[in-house]
Amino acid sequence: MKKTTLGNKNYFAPNPVVLVGVNIQGKPNYLNVTYTGIANRTPAMIFIALNKLHYSTSGVREDKAFSINIPSAEMLTETDYCGCVSGKDVDKANLFHTFYGLARNIPMIEECPLNIECEVVQELDLEGSNVLFIGKVLESYTEEKYLADGLPDIKKINPILFSINDTNYYSIGNNIGKAWDFGKNCARIDNRKRSVVSVP
Amino acid sequence: MKKTTLGNKNYFAPNPVVLVGVNIQGKPNYLNVTYTGIANRTPAMIFIALNKLHYSTSGVREDKAFSINIPSAEMLTETDYCGCVSGKDVDKANLFHTFYGLARNIPMIEECPLNIECEVVQELDLEGSNVLFIGKVLESYTEEKYLADGLPDIKKINPILFSINDTNYYSIGNNIGKAWDFGKNCARIDNRKRSVVSVP
Repeated sequence: MKKTTLGNKNYFAPNPVVLVGVNIQGKPNYLNVTYTGIANRTPAMIFIALNKLHYSTSGVREDKAFSINIPSAEMLTETDYCGCVSGKDVDKANLFHTFYGLARNIPMIEECPLNIECEVVQELDLEGSNVLFIGKVLESYTEEKYLADGLPDIKKINPILFSINDTNYYSIGNNIGKAWDFGKNCARIDNRKRSVVSVP
Repeated sequence: MKKTTLGNKNYFAPNPVVLVGVNIQGKPNYLNVTYTGIANRTPAMIFIALNKLHYSTSGVREDKAFSINIPSAEMLTETDYCGCVSGKDVDKANLFHTFYGLARNIPMIEECPLNIECEVVQELDLEGSNVLFIGKVLESYTEEKYLADGLPDIKKINPILFSINDTNYYSIGNNIGKAWDFGKNCARIDNRKRSVVSVP
C-alpha cells in the first residue's frame, strides 16, 4: 500500500449543489450551498452548514426556516452566480421567479426542478467558520415532467455536483445499479479475504 | 407554474456514497452511508447521520471516532453489500484490507481511493430514527495515482452517487464548469427579471 497524506482539510467529494432560500428583511435571498445532506430518515430532515459571515445566516437564524432548491445543470450560470455575490450587495431574487408553499416566510425558486420547505429544529454552533442548521421537511414540490413512476427522476432533474477538491462542477453520470437489489449478488460474496464479484 | 407536492419525505438527491469505518469490540466494521456531507470549513469537519439501530452506531458512540472511505464505482458490489447486511451477522472487514493511520482505533479501507480519519466532536440525537455525529478531520489519505496537480481528482476516484428517490446508484458525469471562475460571467447577468446567460 502506498497511501499519501493530505492533511486536515475537506477532501470529501462529490457534494450536492443547492440554492438555499430565505427571507431577509421580508425579501427573498438565495445562496449557493454544498455543505448539505440528509440528516434524518423519519421524520425527514435536511442539514445545511452556513458560513457565519454569510448574509443568509442571519435570515435563517431569525426566521428559523429555509428552503432547499435543487437547480438543474441548465441553471449553472445563475447557480454559480448565487455563490459569487452577497445578498447584501445584489438582489439575487431578481434572477428567478419566487413562490411560497405552506409557510409564508420560506421563498422557493420556481425554475428549480425540486424544492424542499424546511423548518429549523436545531441550530448548532460548531465553534469554527460555520453554523449548522437542521431543518425538518414540511413539504416538497416538483413538476409532473420531472417524475417517473410518481418519484422525482434524477436524470430528468439533471442536478449539479461539486468537487470541493478542485472546485469544479460536474453533471450526474449513468445509472450503475439498483441498491439492495444489487445486494442480491451478496450471496455470491463469501467471507474469503477480499473475495470480489466483478461488477458487470 | 404547475408544481405538485410530494409530502414530508426526503427527496434530496443526489447523495454521496461512503463506507463508514469503526472498530466494534476491537474489530473493524464498515457501513454503507449516504446521509453524510461537509459540516464545517475551518477546521474541516464531516457529518454522518446513522440509524440508531445500526450496529456501527454503538461503535461510533463508544470510540468517539470513525472513518469515511470513498469507494470507486468498481467497488459497487462490496459497497452495496455493506448496506445489505449487519456487522452483527457478517464479518464485513473480510471484504477489504484494513489499515490504520494516526489513531489506532479508526479502521480504514485500503482499496478505497480516499480515506478520511475523524474524531467525533459532537453527537446529536435528532429525536427521530437517526443520530448525528460530527467528526473533525484528523488526516486524509489517498494514493498518488488519484492525484492531479496535487489534489484528489474526482474522475480518477470515480465515486458512487445515490438517488434516494428511486434507490439507484449513479456514476459521476462530465466536468461542466469551474466554480467562481464561471462566476466571471456574473457581470453579464444584470438585475432584469430572470435575465439569463445561456450555459455553453
